[in-house]
Amino acid sequence: MSAYTIGLDFGTLSARGLLADVSDGRVLAQHEFIYPHGVMEQRLPDSTLLPAGWALHHPGDYLDALDAIIPELLRQSGVPAQQVIGIGTDATGSTVLTLTKEGVPLCFLEACRSRPHAWARLWKQQTAQDQADRITRLAQEREEHWLMDYGGRISATWMLPKALETLEEDPALYREAALFAEASDWLVWQLTGQFTRNECTAAYKALYGRRRGYPEPDFLQALHPQLGDFYHDKLAGEIQPLFGRAGGLTRPMAKRLGLQPGTAVAPGILDAHICAAGAGMTGPGEMLSILGTSGCHLLLGEAYHQLPGICGLAKDCILPGYYGYEAGQVCFGDHLAWLVDTIAPRDCVQEAQALGISAHEALSQKAARMKPGQCGLLALDWWNGNRSILIDSKLSGVLLGLGLHTKAEDIYRALLEGLAFGARLIVRLFDRQGLHVRSVRATGGISRKNPLAMQILADVLQLPVRVPLIQHGAAMGSAILAAVATGAQAGGYETTQQAISRMAPNACQAYAPNREHAAVYDSLFAEYERLHDAFGRGHDPVLKRLMHLRDDVLTTLHTDGKQP
Amino acid sequence: MSAYTIGLDFGTLSARGLLADVSDGRVLAQHEFIYPHGVMEQRLPDSTLLPAGWALHHPGDYLDALDAIIPELLRQSGVPAQQVIGIGTDATGSTVLTLTKEGVPLCFLEACRSRPHAWARLWKQQTAQDQADRITRLAQEREEHWLMDYGGRISATWMLPKALETLEEDPALYREAALFAEASDWLVWQLTGQFTRNECTAAYKALYGRRRGYPEPDFLQALHPQLGDFYHDKLAGEIQPLFGRAGGLTRPMAKRLGLQPGTAVAPGILDAHICAAGAGMTGPGEMLSILGTSGCHLLLGEAYHQLPGICGLAKDCILPGYYGYEAGQVCFGDHLAWLVDTIAPRDCVQEAQALGISAHEALSQKAARMKPGQCGLLALDWWNGNRSILIDSKLSGVLLGLGLHTKAEDIYRALLEGLAFGARLIVRLFDRQGLHVRSVRATGGISRKNPLAMQILADVLQLPVRVPLIQHGAAMGSAILAAVATGAQAGGYETTQQAISRMAPNACQAYAPNREHAAVYDSLFAEYERLHDAFGRGHDPVLKRLMHLRDDVLTTLHTDGKQP
Repeated sequence: MSAYTIGLDFGTLSARGLLADVSDGRVLAQHEFIYPHGVMEQRLPDSTLLPAGWALHHPGDYLDALDAIIPELLRQSGVPAQQVIGIGTDATGSTVLTLTKEGVPLCFLEACRSRPHAWARLWKQQTAQDQADRITRLAQEREEHWLMDYGGRISATWMLPKALETLEEDPALYREAALFAEASDWLVWQLTGQFTRNECTAAYKALYGRRRGYPEPDFLQALHPQLGDFYHDKLAGEIQPLFGRAGGLTRPMAKRLGLQPGTAVAPGILDAHICAAGAGMTGPGEMLSILGTSGCHLLLGEAYHQLPGICGLAKDCILPGYYGYEAGQVCFGDHLAWLVDTIAPRDCVQEAQALGISAHEALSQKAARMKPGQCGLLALDWWNGNRSILIDSKLSGVLLGLGLHTKAEDIYRALLEGLAFGARLIVRLFDRQGLHVRSVRATGGISRKNPLAMQILADVLQLPVRVPLIQHGAAMGSAILAAVATGAQAGGYETTQQAISRMAPNACQAYAPNREHAAVYDSLFAEYERLHDAFGRGHDPVLKRLMHLRDDVLTTLHTDGKQP
Repeated sequence: MSAYTIGLDFGTLSARGLLADVSDGRVLAQHEFIYPHGVMEQRLPDSTLLPAGWALHHPGDYLDALDAIIPELLRQSGVPAQQVIGIGTDATGSTVLTLTKEGVPLCFLEACRSRPHAWARLWKQQTAQDQADRITRLAQEREEHWLMDYGGRISATWMLPKALETLEEDPALYREAALFAEASDWLVWQLTGQFTRNECTAAYKALYGRRRGYPEPDFLQALHPQLGDFYHDKLAGEIQPLFGRAGGLTRPMAKRLGLQPGTAVAPGILDAHICAAGAGMTGPGEMLSILGTSGCHLLLGEAYHQLPGICGLAKDCILPGYYGYEAGQVCFGDHLAWLVDTIAPRDCVQEAQALGISAHEALSQKAARMKPGQCGLLALDWWNGNRSILIDSKLSGVLLGLGLHTKAEDIYRALLEGLAFGARLIVRLFDRQGLHVRSVRATGGISRKNPLAMQILADVLQLPVRVPLIQHGAAMGSAILAAVATGAQAGGYETTQQAISRMAPNACQAYAPNREHAAVYDSLFAEYERLHDAFGRGHDPVLKRLMHLRDDVLTTLHTDGKQP
């Protein structure tokens, strides 16, 4: 009897699900569900105005996604519920929910629904920068060894800065919250009725290490007198290794979704990290680049190295047996979307419409006709700050070389080149520690939709880039994880390696580096690196001063009740 | 009997003419003529491809403009030819024509029409940068005192670099050209049948000084062995002071235009400099800012000061009796036009259309709602290089502070602020030499069409800005010059001051500086100044390297016969 697993990927704007044949990974059905509330950045559902920089999810949208996707997968595929042997889920992170002890999101309570901290704060919200800076400084002062597992700086987007932000901005709600949980773990709780925390998200986003545990209570105490018990109380919950079974589907949830009770559910996992399995990554030497709105670069290593500027480092949290190194570019495709949405000129949009292609494609086609150096521009790709290797959300983008001849496609190309230069700094960081990158496996929307971006990446890195031909890499990874959670006896797999080798896609689109472009890109990269250090490492604080000025104005306008 | 003069202003894209009452400056008629050939930047009329950076006029367009405008002014006003007592003309410069000894532009000869140097090279063409740099270096080596009359650097846009460029790129055509002439002087030649050179253009654009004459032949010889006789031969022609009569209208030209033979014709003059008279400037303390596609700042002084970074300095060439200091911003409104034409998004354009306003107005209205500092951006306003105070065409624009929140109107505002910061550096340069600027009189298209630009200028400079309510300031200045050329006995004026006080407009739109904005603009200006020096004074050569790379690619493409 054939067996199938379902993989669900809870992204930023939508959730994607697929149903895959366990024997060969063939996708029988897939479905996308756009969150009805999207990303709430201006107002809460009751019209409460949000401060600048907030980005929230409605947790109800996650449940609606389950209700919409799973029955649709069964309907499309015609696979009977008994043959669905496992479910895997992944989600963005740190995406933080504040919960009652029963797991009810506080935003579901009438008393809390006007309070921003009661909602799911998205991975990309960076408002806790001040908190993150204080955590970094304290860890430096106390010479906390774990700090270098995170490259030496704590990101404003992670669990602890967000928790401290809640404690400081809405202390009553902080007290009200019995638990702080990641979206990925809350989802598994909804499916299985049991609350555990997956090791991947705990390690990469909540400062957890398998040997060392969480930071000490006295560290928290020193941050804030009322934070001492945070890990013990509000982050309570067993840490569960990834490659196993989190639990079985509850009877009510099985009924609701049309599946069998007890169906194996895999632990939650970060959407980026599960792409490694979904894209067929098998070991060191190949960097996995997940290039969507943001960019995430994962590399496996045999040994433990602390590296300045990476985002995280943990064992057995990407593939079993390896240390997984994570680095990131906080804003990748977002740059291109910004250009198309904000400054793509009318002519370009009309031209694209006439040709029946997107404005992205039209700009990309024009940019593809240029030689390296021809656009005359250099971009520091910091439109939403810098994750690796500076880990600083208070940076902003820079464009140099603008002229009256500059067109939107020139800027488009400069952004692509800037992103590739950012990736090259990351590759060099790895290389210098002996973590050699010999090729890139790219996945995510940009990898499939933007061949020019992939060619420029190959040319700037002077490395081959391969793009697996799969639409939903993360969801496929979750389906693979579900097959591992099920286990060989129940129709799944004994090991993750087996599951990947059978289920992950083999076919790739390959991009070979153009050797003729190496010299120009070497010289442009040298400029990029110098400016990266000048503006990013504090030699020239102009970007921070500009942001500070802007924040001041926006704060004043917000205080005066004027929507900027 | 009433008397009238005609002022003609030969600009970049069109010529404008007006007919004014000599007694009070009242404008009875005005007319604009768009040049049929526009600015030729890609190809010559016979399809010959132009190298990158070229910008040419067709001299025939100037004659067509005369034919179109003057009869139209007579028709509109109903003024009989006998009552038109004088004609004044101004033109862009250095706009260089190569001529036969009879004054025929070489481009009119069949043998020369495919050769770019045979056409009128426009003031804004900067391709002779290398030649300009060599002239500057040689003048530095020889400690030529006149170099500091031009701020210490020779602009690529002036007569001598253009002549040297011709000699080096098309030596046969250089030999063929009996004369090199400014468009302004060629026009007066066509009207009067006599060739003279006006002192204003000679002084500001051709290195002429009334006491010292032109640079010495041995200086030219040292630049190029065949250049030694350039001033003596190809720049021959009497230098004529401005405030007098160049000659009388020839019989054939009078017939052609419908005027009386012998009508007084004023000497030619630069279009910017004649705005001083046209806008009613009367003495020191008030800076005249002519803000159109480019920006030109003129200040009068009682004494002679050499200032680093100005564009020129001459006595009696703006108003009689004063030293006239010229500084400039090579690209002013061009920045805004670039934004609107190249990256104004579709929504903005559609929104503007729906409101029945221009995209400029729509962006300006949105930008006007922002507080200083709110856009989060800082721009180095070098989209077409920097004239004052760096005099360097190899610089390019920089935008800092870009974010996903950045909209076209933010960039629009940042450009306006950057332009005002550029103007503030110029004001400070004057101030430090005791040439105090207490207010600004602004004219040109931007001053009338963009109130936000004027308010930001007032706020950044913390000085009052006044905009005379006149549409064609340069043409009015030329009409005033025509009344001076005619002289009191023939119905005009004895002195320039009299003519200005009677004919120039009194009504102004006034912009008072907002004191609340001073602090934020002071701090942004400090950032601007630091980056101006870092990127502009060679501490960080990245902008030059980017331009060099781009030029290399474009040259290769051009050599390969591919239109970039």
